[in-house]
Amino acid sequence: MEAVFQPRHQFQPWIIFFYLNLMHILFADKFPLKQLEMLQTAGHNTDYRPELQAADLPRFVPGKDALIVRSTNISRMTIEAANQLKIIVRAGAGTNTIDKAAASDNGILVCNVPGKNAAAVAELAFGLLLSIDRRIPDNVSEIRKGVWNKKRFSAAQGVMGKTLGIVGAGSIGMCVAERAQAFGMKILMVKKASRSEKILKRMEQLGVEEVKDLKELAMNSDVITVHVPSVPATRNLISEEFLSWMKSDSILLNTSRGEIIDEEALLGALSSKPMRAGLDVYVNEPAAPTGEFRSKLAQHPNVYGTHHIGASTFQAQNAVANGVVEILKAYEKGKVLNRVN
Amino acid sequence: MEAVFQPRHQFQPWIIFFYLNLMHILFADKFPLKQLEMLQTAGHNTDYRPELQAADLPRFVPGKDALIVRSTNISRMTIEAANQLKIIVRAGAGTNTIDKAAASDNGILVCNVPGKNAAAVAELAFGLLLSIDRRIPDNVSEIRKGVWNKKRFSAAQGVMGKTLGIVGAGSIGMCVAERAQAFGMKILMVKKASRSEKILKRMEQLGVEEVKDLKELAMNSDVITVHVPSVPATRNLISEEFLSWMKSDSILLNTSRGEIIDEEALLGALSSKPMRAGLDVYVNEPAAPTGEFRSKLAQHPNVYGTHHIGASTFQAQNAVANGVVEILKAYEKGKVLNRVN
Repeated sequence: MEAVFQPRHQFQPWIIFFYLNLMHILFADKFPLKQLEMLQTAGHNTDYRPELQAADLPRFVPGKDALIVRSTNISRMTIEAANQLKIIVRAGAGTNTIDKAAASDNGILVCNVPGKNAAAVAELAFGLLLSIDRRIPDNVSEIRKGVWNKKRFSAAQGVMGKTLGIVGAGSIGMCVAERAQAFGMKILMVKKASRSEKILKRMEQLGVEEVKDLKELAMNSDVITVHVPSVPATRNLISEEFLSWMKSDSILLNTSRGEIIDEEALLGALSSKPMRAGLDVYVNEPAAPTGEFRSKLAQHPNVYGTHHIGASTFQAQNAVANGVVEILKAYEKGKVLNRVN
Repeated sequence: MEAVFQPRHQFQPWIIFFYLNLMHILFADKFPLKQLEMLQTAGHNTDYRPELQAADLPRFVPGKDALIVRSTNISRMTIEAANQLKIIVRAGAGTNTIDKAAASDNGILVCNVPGKNAAAVAELAFGLLLSIDRRIPDNVSEIRKGVWNKKRFSAAQGVMGKTLGIVGAGSIGMCVAERAQAFGMKILMVKKASRSEKILKRMEQLGVEEVKDLKELAMNSDVITVHVPSVPATRNLISEEFLSWMKSDSILLNTSRGEIIDEEALLGALSSKPMRAGLDVYVNEPAAPTGEFRSKLAQHPNVYGTHHIGASTFQAQNAVANGVVEILKAYEKGKVLNRVN
């Protein structure tokens, strides 16, 4: 019996390996239970505190190896308070809420999980397009009032054979293109020298036609959908001039950021021609999850507005959470994925 | 000069050919101008009278070679009043409004234009699906009231990765499948021995998985969409039992005919579990283009209802009209397309 008994403190290579890679991970935003349990099962110590605010973080980061956030700000103060932090993972794409310079100064990796909400945003853009074409929200509102108006709602264009101009060929723009192809739409994108061979090949497979500039795109599209990040160069990209180029009865979709559109100019365009818009984002949208929102644009009769819900599906949250797990598992093995600093 | 002059009455084979094939065509429903002009340019004599009712037809059919209708009834009386009618074309699929037996008795062809509105119906089905998943009509209604409620509307499932059960593998069902594949959905259809090799091959390309019966379809689908014709065998196909098999939080879409669903049973299901429905058709829907429509089902808070507009797009009307022109041009050349009697 004694010969096979092994005391706990005896040297065990697998225990060393296990402890070396075990991390203390702080979650300072909501994170799905399934992926949290995957990390626990892998031996990590998880501290799930979705209620934490930016100002609380300096008290909670000491003793943590990894910090996972969605929109919670990570300041230099938080980073300097961290005594053993090695990696920050943004469960999502945008890292402008993280002081990346401070992280670099302290030798901390910042990684993100981009592209995982592309399908969700593309679904909303398409949902808005089909809703606008058939006026589904107005159909529903009339039916709920006990009114039958087949006559009014029978005057739709249909989507098949129409031309869709996609502004932005990132993962969301390409997801929209894939869906548009299946709907029999002709797809236009602006020619850009910097595109990778891979993207160009995918564009060709999807039958995307390249046009020389935004003017040609606007003038030839029945529907324009915007999928670019909010950076200084894209502010008011959909300008008064762009709107003047758009066809009279065209449709504009924005599921990116409010700042991409000159909202005053869009209000003007909506008053001067029968164009319609589907908007998920607004310059002055409330930061709070609920509240009052008065906006001439969002409330315009030719606008169907949603509540900045583009990426807000369980499918997307699940895909992002899988991406976080993938980054942490790779990091355990000494591999860094999606580093942004 | 006299040697090259040819008097009008001189024998001219091409004039004979022309007059032999010239038809007097009566349009007893709306028809797009573009295709009407195509027929005129081809030398046909068109009599465009969309205002005609079924009872007027016997007075208008004499002297006509072809009669084109959408929903206007063609009775035996009309057919017997026709002294030179050779072909009736239904600009659409359903020919239950035409007395086909009377047409056969009088040696008159009845042809239809099926499958041309498939894309339009598929677009509406998808529009309803995406509207329900993201609650777009409720988003719009809240925004119009000045309410911001990102919290409520962020709890969507998303469509990618979900399972879509399609009831009916006709042209509409297949159009829906094509779109669903691009949206990354898993597709189920009930196995049927009578399917053509062509359909089976297309199903395989689209990744459709065959299940043994409606029960298996209902139990394994997150979304069910119905695309079958209204015939005795499909009445109440979506029965109380079928609804009981459906997942608790699933979505039911009906853009076919009201009679396919047991509406009382659906009302019961909507009250007993959190399932939602998108309906374009109702058993008791008004026949008139406008009016009052009181329906517990259509007005249920978990239902998004539209006004029987599935096929009502310009794209579909245009495609159907092209189909009518195709049938008439083939008939000129002695070829009969899409004969149904």
